[in-house]
Amino acid sequence: MVKFSKDPREEKLPIFGENLLADKLLLRQYLRAKQVLIVTNEIVAPLYLHYLQDAFSELQCDVIILADGEEAKSQHSLNLIFNILIEKGHNRDTTLVALGGGVITDLTGFAAATYMRGVNFLSLPTTLLAQVDAALGGKTAINHQNIKNVVGCFYHPQAIIIDFSLLHSLPIREFRAGFAEIIKYALLAGEPLKSILMNFLQQGFSLSSKYLTDIIKHCCKIKLTIVNADPWEQGDRVLLNLGHTFAHALESYGNYQRWIHGEAVAIGLYYAVLLSYNLGSCTRENLTLVDKLLELANLPRRIPADVDLLELSRYFAYDKKILAGKGRFILISDWGNCYVADNISHELLMNTLHNLRIRKR
Amino acid sequence: MVKFSKDPREEKLPIFGENLLADKLLLRQYLRAKQVLIVTNEIVAPLYLHYLQDAFSELQCDVIILADGEEAKSQHSLNLIFNILIEKGHNRDTTLVALGGGVITDLTGFAAATYMRGVNFLSLPTTLLAQVDAALGGKTAINHQNIKNVVGCFYHPQAIIIDFSLLHSLPIREFRAGFAEIIKYALLAGEPLKSILMNFLQQGFSLSSKYLTDIIKHCCKIKLTIVNADPWEQGDRVLLNLGHTFAHALESYGNYQRWIHGEAVAIGLYYAVLLSYNLGSCTRENLTLVDKLLELANLPRRIPADVDLLELSRYFAYDKKILAGKGRFILISDWGNCYVADNISHELLMNTLHNLRIRKR
Repeated sequence: MVKFSKDPREEKLPIFGENLLADKLLLRQYLRAKQVLIVTNEIVAPLYLHYLQDAFSELQCDVIILADGEEAKSQHSLNLIFNILIEKGHNRDTTLVALGGGVITDLTGFAAATYMRGVNFLSLPTTLLAQVDAALGGKTAINHQNIKNVVGCFYHPQAIIIDFSLLHSLPIREFRAGFAEIIKYALLAGEPLKSILMNFLQQGFSLSSKYLTDIIKHCCKIKLTIVNADPWEQGDRVLLNLGHTFAHALESYGNYQRWIHGEAVAIGLYYAVLLSYNLGSCTRENLTLVDKLLELANLPRRIPADVDLLELSRYFAYDKKILAGKGRFILISDWGNCYVADNISHELLMNTLHNLRIRKR
Repeated sequence: MVKFSKDPREEKLPIFGENLLADKLLLRQYLRAKQVLIVTNEIVAPLYLHYLQDAFSELQCDVIILADGEEAKSQHSLNLIFNILIEKGHNRDTTLVALGGGVITDLTGFAAATYMRGVNFLSLPTTLLAQVDAALGGKTAINHQNIKNVVGCFYHPQAIIIDFSLLHSLPIREFRAGFAEIIKYALLAGEPLKSILMNFLQQGFSLSSKYLTDIIKHCCKIKLTIVNADPWEQGDRVLLNLGHTFAHALESYGNYQRWIHGEAVAIGLYYAVLLSYNLGSCTRENLTLVDKLLELANLPRRIPADVDLLELSRYFAYDKKILAGKGRFILISDWGNCYVADNISHELLMNTLHNLRIRKR
């Protein structure tokens, strides 16, 4: 068993591979003692839960199966987890195992961070979006009062195991959603991810593409480089929020029903680049290419006409990036060159939300 | 304004002094921006809240006043805090100010640790127990399902301001309760605290004693030395739990109504030393002197006869110190010499709970 560390500045690269869930020795290596609680959801459980139950068959292995979807990222689910941990007598050396997408990894991470002031945590992301983004970086959270991720903390898992084989069972909508975050990383870091991504998208989205595992590894490396340089988001880590001010507002506005996270991020990326363009900070070619990549990934890119933009913009007030009362947006200058702007006028923002290309330079 | 740090390994000594709450410049120095939420209770608010409201009169200063007592350390109170923070539009650069005893500092600290993944936190402990122990060390928590401190995390305030003047309004029962933790520190660290404490107790418990501020400062230094060497309680920090396995069980057993925390710790200290004596690890003189000091502080020392000891002992199962299924108790060899034991038999434990002095050596 590995040494247990709570030092929040120590996130290591995930373990990558095929069929890792079937590797009992690997899974057991990251436990601390003879107690485990697996948190998963109703979609993932029938497919993969038995692998973990096999691996942990000689231990006290409890399971909690939540409903699928963002609603599960709630105080209610958190209490269900705490209740079962208490009821089943889990001690401080227990291990919480997250088996699912970003909802499950965020929620389980927060439970692990706060049960008995922090217990061991093993993260097994099952969606592309969680494998390239959500499961990494130590951000844990629940939603509260319809505000996304407003309660949470920073807490790193003992290990993140990224099993590429799990993606074969992923619904196509979820698979596409992952590409919103991947396009974000290409915008943040530029080459070589940008070219690999374009090759993948132009060859038409095949799970068996040799580019896919490369793309996942690149995203993880980009994220960890940023996160480890700024673990508590007091500087450049905030760039990882590219597109997310719009995305979180859309998710809250739609009560988490209308768009899944990656779809909201896709729309958010388009408007972040449009805002950059309107501000004169990036070229029309940049905007066109981002739009093209999102289209190739078959992701939504525009705010539908029925959305009340004034109501939508009210959710910007809950953005965690606000400092000294000023909203901050992540904008792009070019591929691989993003920055923070806190001088966006309400007029420019509303024009952008109306999808007006109004660059004046 | 000071630099905001989330690094959990950086607890500094508190700021000590008289009439510090009246020092507006001092208080404002630890804010980050123009938003503050003060969390306090119905006992403290009428006495001291106006000082803070004066100091923060030019800022957005919101207030939440909770009921007095351990019941306030709940998910319900936490949600009240989150709701007001969201409703009043508090951003990530807001400051949460705890004005109260350990219940308020633990609860507010946990809210500060988890609102938007961590906001600025200023701790103003108003009880002796919080000034010598609870407000220090970065442990935050709420109770859940009648289990004490089972949900929480490690999070340090920006500053802890210890205003000795506040103790003049402290009810005598609360004042005495603080001495349980002080006797704990004398057991943990020995001299010179032991002698200063004995002088103070033998001179009869006067708030104006010249020894009192010395005692408070000594306890803080002892605690921070231990905490900073082991911020996440993976080694010697666990010694700070001396007496607390018994204390937490008693508090849960009595539904937090029968004993306030310091009283439960007083009883817990007696039984921890009795257990040490029964195990042959400390002398009868040690036991007698601890008993005498607790008596001088007018604290309870025995588990009353009506307590169902088997039911009480069931709460030991929720002790956060348990590792590999084994309960761990903090025992003493002598003043200034404590250690962890994980080999306590059920029989010895039950005999000790029955207050039997059964040393066989």
